[in-house]
Amino acid sequence: MKKVGILMGSDSDLPILEKTANILNEFEVPFEMHVYSAHRTPEQAIEFALKAEENGFGVLICAAGMAAHLAGVVAGHTTLPVIGIPCKSTCLDGMDALLSTVMMPSGIPVATVAINGGANAGILAVEMLAISDKDLALKLKQKRQNDTIKVLEKNKNIEEKFNK
Amino acid sequence: MKKVGILMGSDSDLPILEKTANILNEFEVPFEMHVYSAHRTPEQAIEFALKAEENGFGVLICAAGMAAHLAGVVAGHTTLPVIGIPCKSTCLDGMDALLSTVMMPSGIPVATVAINGGANAGILAVEMLAISDKDLALKLKQKRQNDTIKVLEKNKNIEEKFNK
Amino acid sequence: MKKVGILMGSDSDLPILEKTANILNEFEVPFEMHVYSAHRTPEQAIEFALKAEENGFGVLICAAGMAAHLAGVVAGHTTLPVIGIPCKSTCLDGMDALLSTVMMPSGIPVATVAINGGANAGILAVEMLAISDKDLALKLKQKRQNDTIKVLEKNKNIEEKFNK
Amino acid sequence: MKKVGILMGSDSDLPILEKTANILNEFEVPFEMHVYSAHRTPEQAIEFALKAEENGFGVLICAAGMAAHLAGVVAGHTTLPVIGIPCKSTCLDGMDALLSTVMMPSGIPVATVAINGGANAGILAVEMLAISDKDLALKLKQKRQNDTIKVLEKNKNIEEKFNK
Amino acid sequence: MKKVGILMGSDSDLPILEKTANILNEFEVPFEMHVYSAHRTPEQAIEFALKAEENGFGVLICAAGMAAHLAGVVAGHTTLPVIGIPCKSTCLDGMDALLSTVMMPSGIPVATVAINGGANAGILAVEMLAISDKDLALKLKQKRQNDTIKVLEKNKNIEEKFNK
Amino acid sequence: MKKVGILMGSDSDLPILEKTANILNEFEVPFEMHVYSAHRTPEQAIEFALKAEENGFGVLICAAGMAAHLAGVVAGHTTLPVIGIPCKSTCLDGMDALLSTVMMPSGIPVATVAINGGANAGILAVEMLAISDKDLALKLKQKRQNDTIKVLEKNKNIEEKFNK
Amino acid sequence: MKKVGILMGSDSDLPILEKTANILNEFEVPFEMHVYSAHRTPEQAIEFALKAEENGFGVLICAAGMAAHLAGVVAGHTTLPVIGIPCKSTCLDGMDALLSTVMMPSGIPVATVAINGGANAGILAVEMLAISDKDLALKLKQKRQNDTIKVLEKNKNIEEKFNK
Amino acid sequence: MKKVGILMGSDSDLPILEKTANILNEFEVPFEMHVYSAHRTPEQAIEFALKAEENGFGVLICAAGMAAHLAGVVAGHTTLPVIGIPCKSTCLDGMDALLSTVMMPSGIPVATVAINGGANAGILAVEMLAISDKDLALKLKQKRQNDTIKVLEKNKNIEEKFNK
Repeated sequence: MKKVGILMGSDSDLPILEKTANILNEFEVPFEMHVYSAHRTPEQAIEFALKAEENGFGVLICAAGMAAHLAGVVAGHTTLPVIGIPCKSTCLDGMDALLSTVMMPSGIPVATVAINGGANAGILAVEMLAISDKDLALKLKQKRQNDTIKVLEKNKNIEEKFNK
Repeated sequence: MKKVGILMGSDSDLPILEKTANILNEFEVPFEMHVYSAHRTPEQAIEFALKAEENGFGVLICAAGMAAHLAGVVAGHTTLPVIGIPCKSTCLDGMDALLSTVMMPSGIPVATVAINGGANAGILAVEMLAISDKDLALKLKQKRQNDTIKVLEKNKNIEEKFNK
Repeated sequence: MKKVGILMGSDSDLPILEKTANILNEFEVPFEMHVYSAHRTPEQAIEFALKAEENGFGVLICAAGMAAHLAGVVAGHTTLPVIGIPCKSTCLDGMDALLSTVMMPSGIPVATVAINGGANAGILAVEMLAISDKDLALKLKQKRQNDTIKVLEKNKNIEEKFNK
Repeated sequence: MKKVGILMGSDSDLPILEKTANILNEFEVPFEMHVYSAHRTPEQAIEFALKAEENGFGVLICAAGMAAHLAGVVAGHTTLPVIGIPCKSTCLDGMDALLSTVMMPSGIPVATVAINGGANAGILAVEMLAISDKDLALKLKQKRQNDTIKVLEKNKNIEEKFNK
Repeated sequence: MKKVGILMGSDSDLPILEKTANILNEFEVPFEMHVYSAHRTPEQAIEFALKAEENGFGVLICAAGMAAHLAGVVAGHTTLPVIGIPCKSTCLDGMDALLSTVMMPSGIPVATVAINGGANAGILAVEMLAISDKDLALKLKQKRQNDTIKVLEKNKNIEEKFNK
Repeated sequence: MKKVGILMGSDSDLPILEKTANILNEFEVPFEMHVYSAHRTPEQAIEFALKAEENGFGVLICAAGMAAHLAGVVAGHTTLPVIGIPCKSTCLDGMDALLSTVMMPSGIPVATVAINGGANAGILAVEMLAISDKDLALKLKQKRQNDTIKVLEKNKNIEEKFNK
Repeated sequence: MKKVGILMGSDSDLPILEKTANILNEFEVPFEMHVYSAHRTPEQAIEFALKAEENGFGVLICAAGMAAHLAGVVAGHTTLPVIGIPCKSTCLDGMDALLSTVMMPSGIPVATVAINGGANAGILAVEMLAISDKDLALKLKQKRQNDTIKVLEKNKNIEEKFNK
Repeated sequence: MKKVGILMGSDSDLPILEKTANILNEFEVPFEMHVYSAHRTPEQAIEFALKAEENGFGVLICAAGMAAHLAGVVAGHTTLPVIGIPCKSTCLDGMDALLSTVMMPSGIPVATVAINGGANAGILAVEMLAISDKDLALKLKQKRQNDTIKVLEKNKNIEEKFNK
């Protein structure tokens, strides 16, 4: 199975990406995680992007805050699908990272998820890999059903408390 | 090859999605296009989403403006990857559609591209399909090189005009 | 008397909706409360919306955060008036939920109240039911007078402290 | 049948409210329209609000731009449901009117529709009146079906053009 | 000397207006403070505005949060200058109150100060009264000089610590 | 009578300030108008501010766009009341000028009116001068009544067209 | 004299950079202009940045719109000062480019000028070079004086028209 | 070597400027720090700006919050490069200071860094001085390498923990 490459611009983004890792572990999708900054270690980030396809990666996930260039820079050096996670910093509530990640010019898309959306980045990566992997596709449907059941249990608690 | 399903909430979004169609035609990726509103024809939109996988779709693309719910609603009824295109309307410069599309809750990701990013949605869909399709992956690299050449030609024009 | 249906996208929104429930209890308006997510339990949310009128509901209230689609999805499956409460999440101060709730396209209105406006959603629901219910209309006027008296008491405290 | 009162802060908002009037005419709901500014003719606006219930009104609709106070001021003088339409002016794309209309303090709700949402304000008013009027409720369902049919016709055109 | 009238929409705004009161006490300008809500006690707020001039007021100061209508409503019932203080609430960082206060339509100005700008509202009121009051004008200049001296003392501390 | 000083940062702001001039002419309030930039002619702007009081000015009005510093700089060199008009430029819809004008730090208020609010700046200046000028105060009330009459005439037109 | 390197992400940004070129020509500062996209020709952009210092450049200017990564990417590959010009695109009024350019993480500054601020980028580059170049410093002062004179001439026109 | 002048509008901005001072100390670049408010001590701020060049300064750094005029005012009185640091205050998350600092009109640039970007302001100042100072240029490259090494060490920790 193709691997997922997870890059973060700073290790302060790790709590968000641990949610990504948890999802990938849950689906038994192999992954690698790296701290590569678009600005402080551009060489390593670009090298990783350039060789990702031949190194067996199928999807890349990039998380960064503020003027979040990592996903865009990586996308400029690969034609693998790149998922961007905008991370909230101390100012502007993540709006800076969101716009820096999603407003990519024509030709170089970044598949952007919600601000701090670590879990959804993992699920989206699995969905991409599942296009050609029936087992993964099946697991996705099971997880969706489990999520539904969890909401319905919460619903039951609320109903019992409020509806007589 | 798996098909791409393209849904728009209103036919006023067609000019944006024609760019998507052009990209898919360029890559010879089969697609279907429909006008299904999350609010005015929810039954058809949901029916399409529920059967998309068994009907041979690999990726879905949804474009909508204002309180853009289409991508999220479709994503809630399939585990195929869903790409969202926020469309600019007469007010708020597309910010309403962007936030309505990208800020999805945990469990149901939407791969969001830039406001009015019709071409990038097409390219992202091809990138997803190319994970398991070497020919498509090769074509993506060729298109990227062509894009590079076009920029370098523009660069040459500017250099000749300004740099002596 | 017709009932009020209260739906929340996540039970984390309960503190806001308890204010709604308190208002309805104060006016002795019957209600039901459910946790139905537009994305994780769309089937239940839609089923509820489709049958709400025949099940004796007169008004529906939907609360959700982030890309808040619940009110819009419910409004797409009923012609009962739907009140939307945008809920503030960890990012963007509720602006994402506000725009996702209020900017509905033509044909499917959502009566949107302030971010986290649980009490006002309850009052608005009572006002709608009171159009054809003189007792409720009277109670609304009494509550308004009580609110006025409370402000005037606060005014008296301030006046005594600052105006000699 | 109870009437709908339509107030606009300035006659420059008339094009938006003509859409409201068209909806009400379509449903044969009686209405009155007035230009009453919250700031320039507050006396008339307040007088209208205070007597609206006894004068046979069931719902009030208020449209205003910029620091849009009309809906809030009217809501402060009646317990009828008040629908607010934020109107886009020359600056800030309607965000000023939206926040001035929707962010009402606890106790005095304004049922806010989208910026420039004249048609939806009319539909919402009809939905409120239809809570206790089966004929109106039926007409709403018919209109919804017609809207669905219109979208499906547009869908057919797009399908014929793009899907072979 | 003419009095300053201070109105707040809710007594939760008192901490901001105590700064206003401190300024007025410092300048020995007489004032009255009231809690009058534009929505919950409109009658009292309007009555106060209508009679303010004949009751010896020269300037009015209004503080409110969220959809902050108080200053605009008061300005609609007097031709005295009205100063508006937008107050920050739990959401949107005061942007809602700022736009609701400052974006007044032509004909009815509100002299808006910064979000939570209680002290500046007081100083601005004194500046207005000082147009025709030489003693007040002199005191304003003295206060300005004192403010300058305070900054220069802070400057001295920083200089001693950092500049050798 | 004290004069009103009108400063603009650029003569491109003149159309907005002609509305100010029209108001002052209507009230027969003497004024002077100057183009003084806070950045390109700071010396002249500051000189004007420093001598404004002794030169017979009672109120100053400053209009500027983008990073609109003019009102703040002038306010830092006088204790006369300073009215700020934020002007809309080609980007950001005037939000930059609004925040640069209104968010003044404690000690130096700027009485800010709406974006492009030239007429309201003039009326506010007259209101300030009218605190100690009964004739002006009377004229303000007459103008307000005329404004009311104009709205009521517009109301009459609308009523005749729509209400049978 | 050291050269100024001017890079644009797209030749659609040329009108903004012609203003930059005009300024540099006015100061007789040598420059080179190139179209290098951070995403479509990253290799050329990075190559240029890496060799800029040894190729005789003293300052680099980068203009880009949307998710404007060019200035940040260039700054990550040089320690020359990098000036960023955020360019306004069809959506969001340049706010996306502004935040993508200015909110750089610690370690890699970008000296950001106003949205579409082509002329100011040129002046800022000259100011940097003038730190160690007395002739340039003198020319800057002369230009500033000329700018002052131009404003004063505009002032004279306005004064003659409005002040009698 | 030319000195760096550091001005802050209020000593509450000191924690941000201590980061600037640390950078300058690290590079052994001489600097002076002052608290000069654009509004409360304009005379001192302007005096400093006017004499900065002859007093041996090569670059000026100005930090301020809210309607942050300091950098613009200083830039209006010198042709040295001026770096602006927008500081986050209690409201609006620093957006007010950012727009007040960066959106300078043509002719008077301010080199703006990120909100609260004290360290980057210091590095940018060093980069400017290094244009004509080979030792400083070398030190910048060494610091950049050290930053790279630090990121790579963090990368190693993450890799060891997550990649087997």
